[in-house]
Amino acid sequence: MVQIMGIEGLPIIKAGDNIAELICKAAEKQGTPIQDGDIIVVTHVIVSRAEGHVVNLDEVKPSTFAENIAKLYDKDPALVEVVLREAKSIRRMADGKIITETKHGFVCANSGVDKSNVPGERCVALLPENPDASADRIRREIKRLVGCDVAVIISDTHGRPLREGEINVAVGVAGLKPIRDRRGEKDLFGYVLRVKQTAVADELASAAELVIGQADEGVPVAIIRGYKFLKSEDARAVELIRPREKDLFL
Amino acid sequence: MVQIMGIEGLPIIKAGDNIAELICKAAEKQGTPIQDGDIIVVTHVIVSRAEGHVVNLDEVKPSTFAENIAKLYDKDPALVEVVLREAKSIRRMADGKIITETKHGFVCANSGVDKSNVPGERCVALLPENPDASADRIRREIKRLVGCDVAVIISDTHGRPLREGEINVAVGVAGLKPIRDRRGEKDLFGYVLRVKQTAVADELASAAELVIGQADEGVPVAIIRGYKFLKSEDARAVELIRPREKDLFL
Repeated sequence: MVQIMGIEGLPIIKAGDNIAELICKAAEKQGTPIQDGDIIVVTHVIVSRAEGHVVNLDEVKPSTFAENIAKLYDKDPALVEVVLREAKSIRRMADGKIITETKHGFVCANSGVDKSNVPGERCVALLPENPDASADRIRREIKRLVGCDVAVIISDTHGRPLREGEINVAVGVAGLKPIRDRRGEKDLFGYVLRVKQTAVADELASAAELVIGQADEGVPVAIIRGYKFLKSEDARAVELIRPREKDLFL
Repeated sequence: MVQIMGIEGLPIIKAGDNIAELICKAAEKQGTPIQDGDIIVVTHVIVSRAEGHVVNLDEVKPSTFAENIAKLYDKDPALVEVVLREAKSIRRMADGKIITETKHGFVCANSGVDKSNVPGERCVALLPENPDASADRIRREIKRLVGCDVAVIISDTHGRPLREGEINVAVGVAGLKPIRDRRGEKDLFGYVLRVKQTAVADELASAAELVIGQADEGVPVAIIRGYKFLKSEDARAVELIRPREKDLFL
């Protein structure tokens, strides 16, 4: 059985907070202390807040391009400016939406810049600078504090091509292989699988949102217990990004 | 807490089997009887097998086009023929892969035609003819047999644009709203969400694969317990398909 437990009772995360410590304490307090083999899924926005990766739009001076786009799309010019600064390319602009490729390589709306769950009327959270490194720091700190070997996933909700609605995906990973390569395994009838590679880190992030996705309750972290993942000491979320030239769908 | 339990010990499903009954019995036998509010996620391939939606490639006469494509891509001409028959359009053909739009509207590799976990050397499973209706039949039959109100999701693993690896998604739904519309809800700090629509049926399907995705163990069904879904009596998986003209990513 796989169990997914939301961590409730975390304080409002602010710059400089030790997220790992707060997670360990809150998990302990609610009677579900962290164990070896747990996967800890952390919403990116609290990581960004702890790392001070938050921008006050009042302090941003928009470029002429940002001003023009903002006017056309009825958006905040300072927000557009931040979205542009976080992008390494713009994939599409239409219908008031800006789909960009972030510095990390993720293709998503608004470069992942997030207004929700950020304190301060005019503040937005950016994606963490290096979400894999953030995940790794949390993982090592949990090991130091409570002695448990865990995997950590930093998650964000992304829209996607072809299908409606957003799903939670992994933008940073530590301690587990994000993709389980099942090519060569046999099925129920001895047929050798030829094409199966499963994006387990994304599936774990989506599973976590079953307890995380409650905006009004403030559950930014989930523990997933009972899933036997493949360990990795050099995992990177970039393994989940399909290079454009290999993308048959686009 | 959300729990995900694989249903083990199901027999090999064959044409005419009552899947709902087999699920109820196996769940009972392993000590996790079905309860009100459970979500039952069923891999499409056993649904197709029960419904006799399986094709023996030896009985398929390929068209000239299928023969030509098969030669170019080093594929089985009969398999290509079945893939074409299941498609309402072809989105891309390259690198030995055929990305189609199925009759239902799903965009995926090989029209969802599946070789794995199908008995018979030359047999392939098609997607169920009407996966929503299949899900609804299983749901009603579970209600009749054990009196429980459940939701049912028929799942398939799909590759996707932008990201590597496959994830499990919903191709049929019954009893739950596949998309949770959270626009208008407030976040932790009172900010009103403007764009958030969560594809919960896909997230549930992905969560289920954490116990289903074990080819060698033959776990084709999962029970998800403890997730409060929005009920619906007229749910349709087509709500999860983004119309091409609205797709900003493509």
